[in-house]
Amino acid sequence: MKIFLIGIGTGNLNHLTLEAVNTLNNVDLILIPKKNSETLDLLNIRLEICKALITNTKYNIIEFGLPLRDTKKEYSLSVKQWHSEVAAVWKKTIVSFKGKKDKVGLLIWGDPSLYDSSIKIAETIINKYNINVIPGITSIQALMAAHKINMNKIGKPFFVTTGRFLKQEGLFFNKDRSFVMLDGECSFQYINTKMYYMWWGAYLGMNKEIIFKGHLDEIYQDVISNRKIAKLKYGWIMDTYLLQKKD
Amino acid sequence: MKIFLIGIGTGNLNHLTLEAVNTLNNVDLILIPKKNSETLDLLNIRLEICKALITNTKYNIIEFGLPLRDTKKEYSLSVKQWHSEVAAVWKKTIVSFKGKKDKVGLLIWGDPSLYDSSIKIAETIINKYNINVIPGITSIQALMAAHKINMNKIGKPFFVTTGRFLKQEGLFFNKDRSFVMLDGECSFQYINTKMYYMWWGAYLGMNKEIIFKGHLDEIYQDVISNRKIAKLKYGWIMDTYLLQKKD
Repeated sequence: MKIFLIGIGTGNLNHLTLEAVNTLNNVDLILIPKKNSETLDLLNIRLEICKALITNTKYNIIEFGLPLRDTKKEYSLSVKQWHSEVAAVWKKTIVSFKGKKDKVGLLIWGDPSLYDSSIKIAETIINKYNINVIPGITSIQALMAAHKINMNKIGKPFFVTTGRFLKQEGLFFNKDRSFVMLDGECSFQYINTKMYYMWWGAYLGMNKEIIFKGHLDEIYQDVISNRKIAKLKYGWIMDTYLLQKKD
Repeated sequence: MKIFLIGIGTGNLNHLTLEAVNTLNNVDLILIPKKNSETLDLLNIRLEICKALITNTKYNIIEFGLPLRDTKKEYSLSVKQWHSEVAAVWKKTIVSFKGKKDKVGLLIWGDPSLYDSSIKIAETIINKYNINVIPGITSIQALMAAHKINMNKIGKPFFVTTGRFLKQEGLFFNKDRSFVMLDGECSFQYINTKMYYMWWGAYLGMNKEIIFKGHLDEIYQDVISNRKIAKLKYGWIMDTYLLQKKD
């Protein structure tokens, strides 16, 4: 068996690469998280991608129930335990499917290598040799495309981090630029908001895309309130932002 | 006039997204650097992409001579001067074309927002409103796909920098992970090679892809020699690597 981890970008069907489309058309079986595992909207995006881009009208999709991570445990321990639980579910789901399943595909939001567990989960089931990673457009790239700016200042480095890390450890280096992902708690409000400029975006690349940019102290409350309204409206939100220290 | 900066990934035709393919099919004119501006191999990749993915058999390509950057000046000054020189050439080239040119496309290696000047160059010609950025697979993503690993350790941040910066400033934070791009001088040999693990790759996603991984002190000489041989063989090389500090 081979597992194909297919990066699908950030919810825009046109984010998929030709390699991703070819792979979708070439796998025997596609694993998709069950409706109760994520919101209907996110499930529908995956189903729409399959419907729109797989030319064979008879393709096999099987749903699996995504376990919840035990958030009471220490973070990295809870993530590792969650990985083995998800791996067990993938395995059980694949075994339960009676048709051909030499090539199993999973649709991974963004890129499978960026703040995503699917490579590690796949490794607990099969040999690395049988895992195939298909890159996809990340929310960082979609954020830059929406704002029409560069990730880096000319010749300068940048930093990529998570909301959890920003809140716990702050920005490692506070010059230049830092991208923050997976920040459900709006950790940007806990840093010195006077010192930063922010480019923010949610639902990047989708019709409902929302973007903000400006001095952090001037926009962060708008970001928080708009984020809350959008999340209520759609049932989910994925957002990313870039912080740049003012000169 | 609108300018479309189309990310094409790292030399594999299948890296292009559906959005990139749609855009290529939708522009009136495509600007491509002249043969003497870059090696024939790189020019051919761009021409092959157009030939393979544009369905209309009559599309308009016009070549422009890419100016050389004045490397004697201070880096950021020389880059800014080079931007205005390239902008002037783009403008002149577009003016010289007599057909329809409402939508002008450029094929950008990787992603237009990552260590690339095209957004800034376009801004000196037209209003930001008329610039469209189409994300493409970066060499970082192609490196991760080749090695089948994650950009980040679980929940941890990472750093993206250039060879020039690594040589001048070292690694800003030496824990966790740093990606290094644009390192024609193999700057990894000037850091403490005993302290790092490296994942390296060149021609990522292409048939001639080369990858290495291992303890930096054990592999860096192989990387340097293989890099030299490959560059002689193909006339060009583009490589990227990830350094991780050993625990």
